[in-house]
Amino acid sequence: MRRIVVLSGGIGGARFLRGLQRAAPEADITVIGNTGDDIHLFGLKVCPDLDTVMYTLGGGIHEEQGWGRADETFTVKEELAAYGVGPEWFGLGDRDFATHIVRTQMIAAGYPLSAVTEALCRRWQPGVRLLPMTDDRVETHVLIDDGAGGRKAVHFQEYWVRLRASVPAHAVVPVGAEQARPAPGVLEALAEADLVLFPPSNPVVSVGTILAVPGMREGIAEAGVPVIGLSPLIGGAPVRGMADKVLAAVGVESTAAAVAQHYGSGLLDGWLVDTADRDAVTVVEADGIRCRAVPLLMTDVDAAADMARAALDLAREVRAA
Amino acid sequence: MRRIVVLSGGIGGARFLRGLQRAAPEADITVIGNTGDDIHLFGLKVCPDLDTVMYTLGGGIHEEQGWGRADETFTVKEELAAYGVGPEWFGLGDRDFATHIVRTQMIAAGYPLSAVTEALCRRWQPGVRLLPMTDDRVETHVLIDDGAGGRKAVHFQEYWVRLRASVPAHAVVPVGAEQARPAPGVLEALAEADLVLFPPSNPVVSVGTILAVPGMREGIAEAGVPVIGLSPLIGGAPVRGMADKVLAAVGVESTAAAVAQHYGSGLLDGWLVDTADRDAVTVVEADGIRCRAVPLLMTDVDAAADMARAALDLAREVRAA
Repeated sequence: MRRIVVLSGGIGGARFLRGLQRAAPEADITVIGNTGDDIHLFGLKVCPDLDTVMYTLGGGIHEEQGWGRADETFTVKEELAAYGVGPEWFGLGDRDFATHIVRTQMIAAGYPLSAVTEALCRRWQPGVRLLPMTDDRVETHVLIDDGAGGRKAVHFQEYWVRLRASVPAHAVVPVGAEQARPAPGVLEALAEADLVLFPPSNPVVSVGTILAVPGMREGIAEAGVPVIGLSPLIGGAPVRGMADKVLAAVGVESTAAAVAQHYGSGLLDGWLVDTADRDAVTVVEADGIRCRAVPLLMTDVDAAADMARAALDLAREVRAA
Repeated sequence: MRRIVVLSGGIGGARFLRGLQRAAPEADITVIGNTGDDIHLFGLKVCPDLDTVMYTLGGGIHEEQGWGRADETFTVKEELAAYGVGPEWFGLGDRDFATHIVRTQMIAAGYPLSAVTEALCRRWQPGVRLLPMTDDRVETHVLIDDGAGGRKAVHFQEYWVRLRASVPAHAVVPVGAEQARPAPGVLEALAEADLVLFPPSNPVVSVGTILAVPGMREGIAEAGVPVIGLSPLIGGAPVRGMADKVLAAVGVESTAAAVAQHYGSGLLDGWLVDTADRDAVTVVEADGIRCRAVPLLMTDVDAAADMARAALDLAREVRAA
């Protein structure tokens, strides 16, 4: 299983990938990154998930925070605020700004996001091939109450970062996904893959958005290789983030078993749940998805590597079956 | 002489303006700023002269340097360099970047530069009305040797900052000036002016570029008020910058008298030269331009205020004549 394709969101996906690199140092890893939570801020194109993967694997991440740059300063943001220009709720640091400035300049010059991402990665050398899911614009919107008896759509980042998912999400819509095409290299990577992994990223707004790009599910199915996922929920709660809030919006219970069922046996061959959720194993297997319970808390790179090894073991088991 | 219009470049103009504000605290000052050395860097619109005036009068300038922000850091620039993205020869600091980000975002949203400048000045409160000479794009190019027997045009900033004016300039061309229209408010300010001043800014690439905008010279002439200039040269050398290099390109000798003659008696009513150039007084007056010799070294705000008082005195003298 040399060629591995990983559908990744931000922090959880990035930390898992670092474990995968340690567990399978010889593997040729392609990451299909979620771009649904990309946002234009201050006229600059910001790709939070791609950057989190790039910074994490390239050694530039703010470790404790999980996103943004280490040794970051916020001079530009403070100056923008002095001009009365916001939003102030999105934490863009000075080092991070440079990434967005380069990206925006390249996009304005006509380069697609995939080419821009490749250029940025020449600096970071993440050790994986990082591809955006699409070069087309997809923007995840969340439907919330408008406070006047109706509903309104807000950008995912506004829901997630500004509102901290504190209000009910009635629907999650990846606007533009239906018209989007997989970025160059995405379908090729899937066609050549020996294994497809869903890291413990958000099943709705990260992996779900990637799967919403037409051709992606078909590409995975046609690869005919094991598809293994890792539960982002432990004991019915998200390890990090607020996955439960957006799961409710799509009518999925916040349990490791329900997320596996949401992906479905048509897509998923194997599923890892945390040892705290060992009761889910029989439920998931009853749905035709091979399931194992292992520790899923990514306390450090070693723990993430153990999780990756468990995923690789499960893939071998699926293939041998 | 309550309503004063000043045609200003960067450092010299800005420092003179600070003196003028002290000398004439009740005056209603409109600054027509040069935009010919504006440049797009990293996809951002940078307006060096407008910003130097804004920062200087707004209390944000790096005093010793004369341009850029006080207490500046260069994190964004260092990060851009780490991406291999330049130019590295243009010193944009983090605080300064915020100004260019706001400006670029507003221009992308459809606001003309004059409206953007007004918005930026709401923060800085420079105490003058700061207008770009035009909302249209004008870019000063300098014709230099191409090293292969021919000639090539480079952006003024490349000539000035990167090459430090170290190679001969064969011509200075304000590209786009012929098609440019004065920004809203410019002609109105001239029509209502009691006095027009040329501060000791570069006569070619600062004041000269402003005068190259069609309608500007006519607007000054039709105002029918004293037009008083201050020599940027002392003892045949520029006080600051490299004005002599671009004067040579337009065939003007580097002397206080030659610059007055370059502006001409059709435009200029009065001219101040430094006491070191007192011999120029009779030469200039022979050309029909009233001339006085006073200290023109802007060592501090007091010295600049004295220069402004001398200019106001000369204007009264012209008007009384």
